[in-house]
Amino acid sequence: MKRYIYLDHNATTRPRPEVVEAMLPHLRGHYGNASSIYQLGQEERKAIDIAREQLSKLIGVQNADEIVFTGGGSESINWAIKGVAFANRNKGKHIVTTTIEHSAVMKTCKYLETLGWQVTYVGVDWHGRVNPAHVREAITKETVLVSVMHANNEIGTIVSVEDIGKICREKGVPIHVDALQTVGKIPVSVETLQADLVSIGAHKFYGPKGVGALYIRPGTRIQSLIHGGSHEKNRRAGTENVAGIAGLGMAAELAAKDMKHDEKHVRHLRDKLEKHILREIECTRVNGDPEHRMFNTSNMSIEAVEGEGLIIGLDMQGICVSSGSACSSGQTEPSHVLKAIGVPMELAKGSVRFSLGRENTEEEIERVIEVFPKVVERLRGLSPLWSDYKKGLRKSVIAGKAA
Amino acid sequence: MKRYIYLDHNATTRPRPEVVEAMLPHLRGHYGNASSIYQLGQEERKAIDIAREQLSKLIGVQNADEIVFTGGGSESINWAIKGVAFANRNKGKHIVTTTIEHSAVMKTCKYLETLGWQVTYVGVDWHGRVNPAHVREAITKETVLVSVMHANNEIGTIVSVEDIGKICREKGVPIHVDALQTVGKIPVSVETLQADLVSIGAHKFYGPKGVGALYIRPGTRIQSLIHGGSHEKNRRAGTENVAGIAGLGMAAELAAKDMKHDEKHVRHLRDKLEKHILREIECTRVNGDPEHRMFNTSNMSIEAVEGEGLIIGLDMQGICVSSGSACSSGQTEPSHVLKAIGVPMELAKGSVRFSLGRENTEEEIERVIEVFPKVVERLRGLSPLWSDYKKGLRKSVIAGKAA
Repeated sequence: MKRYIYLDHNATTRPRPEVVEAMLPHLRGHYGNASSIYQLGQEERKAIDIAREQLSKLIGVQNADEIVFTGGGSESINWAIKGVAFANRNKGKHIVTTTIEHSAVMKTCKYLETLGWQVTYVGVDWHGRVNPAHVREAITKETVLVSVMHANNEIGTIVSVEDIGKICREKGVPIHVDALQTVGKIPVSVETLQADLVSIGAHKFYGPKGVGALYIRPGTRIQSLIHGGSHEKNRRAGTENVAGIAGLGMAAELAAKDMKHDEKHVRHLRDKLEKHILREIECTRVNGDPEHRMFNTSNMSIEAVEGEGLIIGLDMQGICVSSGSACSSGQTEPSHVLKAIGVPMELAKGSVRFSLGRENTEEEIERVIEVFPKVVERLRGLSPLWSDYKKGLRKSVIAGKAA
Repeated sequence: MKRYIYLDHNATTRPRPEVVEAMLPHLRGHYGNASSIYQLGQEERKAIDIAREQLSKLIGVQNADEIVFTGGGSESINWAIKGVAFANRNKGKHIVTTTIEHSAVMKTCKYLETLGWQVTYVGVDWHGRVNPAHVREAITKETVLVSVMHANNEIGTIVSVEDIGKICREKGVPIHVDALQTVGKIPVSVETLQADLVSIGAHKFYGPKGVGALYIRPGTRIQSLIHGGSHEKNRRAGTENVAGIAGLGMAAELAAKDMKHDEKHVRHLRDKLEKHILREIECTRVNGDPEHRMFNTSNMSIEAVEGEGLIIGLDMQGICVSSGSACSSGQTEPSHVLKAIGVPMELAKGSVRFSLGRENTEEEIERVIEVFPKVVERLRGLSPLWSDYKKGLRKSVIAGKAA
């Protein structure tokens, strides 16, 4: 197999070998439905209980029963928002969220709008930060849910969820936190966040795809998204994906252990890559909050190139990166997040997201540093915009002056 | 590990070794989000396309794109019913189903009732057969969906879905078929069934847990259950569980190849077990349709014993069976299916479900034949009901006469 340099960890990660090992017994050797009363079923049940404890420890949950396993992060998000909306529909039909949420939140809110709910999309500043005071202003007597992401998947900005959580508690409105990009990477505590619902996806932190979790604070009024058998204490029907759940649990345990070390390693590589590109390639800038940003993410706008061209150019060199959100491939519209932070259209189209992970090495980053400017140079060589800029016929959006 | 005799295949099955092998590359070696445009993502995409073809062949689908992968059978069922109900809510709010459906159908319908839908639960005869004429009578101008199961998970009765499908087409009402118990075991064709939606769960036919599919006939008006990214052509959001999907595909391919052989093998074992028990243990009867019944299922009522006692007694001998539906463990109410076919309460409570699979052997069945009568004898030895019957003080529900 071809050797790739994988810099798209915000899209998905490769399960760690220990995760795969934790899954295998439940694929190979074990029979049994974890909801059956015979011993064989109960052995599977134990594996689920262990995973629930492992995840509880990672996110500061005292009572593991407050965590429910799901079929992935998107299911968790859909469940949290629709479940609370429908459970409280007689109380009010207003939801507050932001303009930089993941499509799972956005599309769920848009869907609820078609069913008669009202949604306020609170804007962000040009770093992607949400002003908690704006959330406070958006909350009305009709508001039944606030949904904010902990860190943005595209630009890495970390939102002040704690402050928003405090306001929600004060106002008596439940808050859902989409924590897909933070759980397993930076410390997340449901208590510190003051979150009532927290969505989690295993494959974002070296666990398997197709499994996630939803933390639900006791007392939160929520309906099920998947009705049926009495699995997960009647909250989420469906025969438990024991292998996936065991994998998620192991990923959580490993994350707790390695988080600090991984952050240091990855932050160093990300900074090195970013500084180099900013220095070596003119008319380039970083999107996202300079201070409150995920240590692994670098979203850059490269003037006068197209994002797709960049991705394909890098792909031909075995380097995997993303332009805009990984969930919107095939889409040519510039990312709604870059729009929301006010990146001009022409820059948004030329943006690239590097998202690094624990397996990336110094050598890989050096290779990217070597290749990336060449790819940009080639693309700019074909660009009339760039040619005009170079001829002094056009100003640069980033540099501001004609060359 | 202790050696078990596993006779609970309608609850779940162990993935075949080839299935696990098909999954491993996507857990171990491959990175990449199948929705990313770089080559690594596209390699994962290919694995999904192959699986879609494998499943298409198994269920007679011409255009593989009509199949959408989900997080399991319960999700598929919830999606089919809620998705059609919500998409057609301005047309009508009436659903027709039956009294013997799986809890995923039942609870979803009950949930829709709380939101203002009306549901007609068509009754069945004492073999669990649905009379298509009764479905026809139940359909009104308000009806937007008919949902019937292909074979019942508890008693194995096979429903005349073809005839019901014909009526639905005539009436212009879409039909959803819960085919979890038949796909991969007996021939299923979406054309023969005239089904508009078909729910499938991989772990019922030697595939992995946590992955399923929904067949959707073009033109069917249905909303998404999980909104978000543009995965699965905008129909089901969430990063694709490539390993699970590849496992499902392999399970489908193997099922197509081995179906005939497995049926012959399993039917022989089931018949042997059933005949022996009926002959050796008095006051015992088989529930379900004698003719139209899944070849692997035997649901028996054993008078004057409690189902839980039977399961635990067999479990202590390493034999795994179920009483009522596997999805309702911990539940002491007798099964709604046995109630629906008119099994008297006292017999329903003393029922046991044997569901055999391709790995069961002649030796295993001989061991069960040896052990089962002893377990029953011990339980009846403790039963005042049985003692009264034996003393001639009480009639048997099954045998009809006092001893």
